[in-house]
Amino acid sequence: MNTIITIGRQFGSGGREIGEKVAEHFGIKCYDKELLTRAAKESGFCEEMIQNHDERPTNSFLYNLVMDTYSFGYNASSFVDMPISHKVFLAQFDTIKRIADEGPCVIVGRCADYALADNTNCLHIFIYANEECKTKRIMDKYNLNEAKAREMCTKKDKQRQSYYNYYSSKKWGRADSYDLCINSSVLGIDGTVKLIIQYIEDFEANNE
Amino acid sequence: MNTIITIGRQFGSGGREIGEKVAEHFGIKCYDKELLTRAAKESGFCEEMIQNHDERPTNSFLYNLVMDTYSFGYNASSFVDMPISHKVFLAQFDTIKRIADEGPCVIVGRCADYALADNTNCLHIFIYANEECKTKRIMDKYNLNEAKAREMCTKKDKQRQSYYNYYSSKKWGRADSYDLCINSSVLGIDGTVKLIIQYIEDFEANNE
Repeated sequence: MNTIITIGRQFGSGGREIGEKVAEHFGIKCYDKELLTRAAKESGFCEEMIQNHDERPTNSFLYNLVMDTYSFGYNASSFVDMPISHKVFLAQFDTIKRIADEGPCVIVGRCADYALADNTNCLHIFIYANEECKTKRIMDKYNLNEAKAREMCTKKDKQRQSYYNYYSSKKWGRADSYDLCINSSVLGIDGTVKLIIQYIEDFEANNE
Repeated sequence: MNTIITIGRQFGSGGREIGEKVAEHFGIKCYDKELLTRAAKESGFCEEMIQNHDERPTNSFLYNLVMDTYSFGYNASSFVDMPISHKVFLAQFDTIKRIADEGPCVIVGRCADYALADNTNCLHIFIYANEECKTKRIMDKYNLNEAKAREMCTKKDKQRQSYYNYYSSKKWGRADSYDLCINSSVLGIDGTVKLIIQYIEDFEANNE
């Protein structure tokens, strides 16, 4: 096993659970919220602040203004003036690269596919699901009524999409931004895990 | 075997070849250009005209004007005044439904996933590929230089996208318009075929 798997996902699609089960099968680590703790430790930012800015772009006007000024490069002096959301992105970006250097693992969300775009031993997967399945999952998980669950799905996916589209050069949820995209409602969580395992094994056999 | 498989595809991604190999494995028919011949026979339109309008929307202003007028419904009198491209679409749409009623098969392109949206025994797949792979494939197939091949890929995909987005309620190439999306460059044509066969078999086992 030599492959790093990144998983982008719609909110409520079971992407995290699928990532954990794939990691468990191969005996490797799965990073989701764990990435935040580690990024906090490595960057020196407090974890709460990293959590508050996690996969969430802030005011886009301020954003663009600053990004234009610094042209996406940063040095000691400009880093001080950078908006916190951007600093948090860079901290996560660094941590993702460091984690990938340590060996095979699964990384969920946070533009990991973009951070690792130059690694050839990566597979980038996107998980989505039917509306009913996502709503049901979020109703159960957060004890919400249907309307609230739907609202939460829409809001979270909007945040993830604008975060991804802003920081990466690709489009969130477009098939060709990833290697494989699966609707987890078709085969269910375990069926989807099985197909992904098959995919990774075929990929590894091809690259031997 | 009881499943109908529709395959959307980027130009040059090998979608047709993949569809043919999947069909061969299951001993079922694969419809691509064959659909045009049959739509011609069933509709009474000449085949050349159907070919000329195949997956190609015409002037969108005229289009919208007519579509608004008829609100996507048609009857004997309005059908006469309908633009040819729309008539061709409806002829293909009818033929796709008739083919699906006959039993399991593979249908490549032509909004087949949209025409069969209400069938529960369908799997909708989208095939795409890396730029280099698509360009190489088209250079070899049509004996073109690199620039011409790239141009042809871009043009054909633009046509397919606007045709699909116009006639269906979904977005061409967006992951969640399909059940499974695969970059055929990762495992190659045969590896992709193998994964799709596994997927269909798992789907059939689940639905038994």
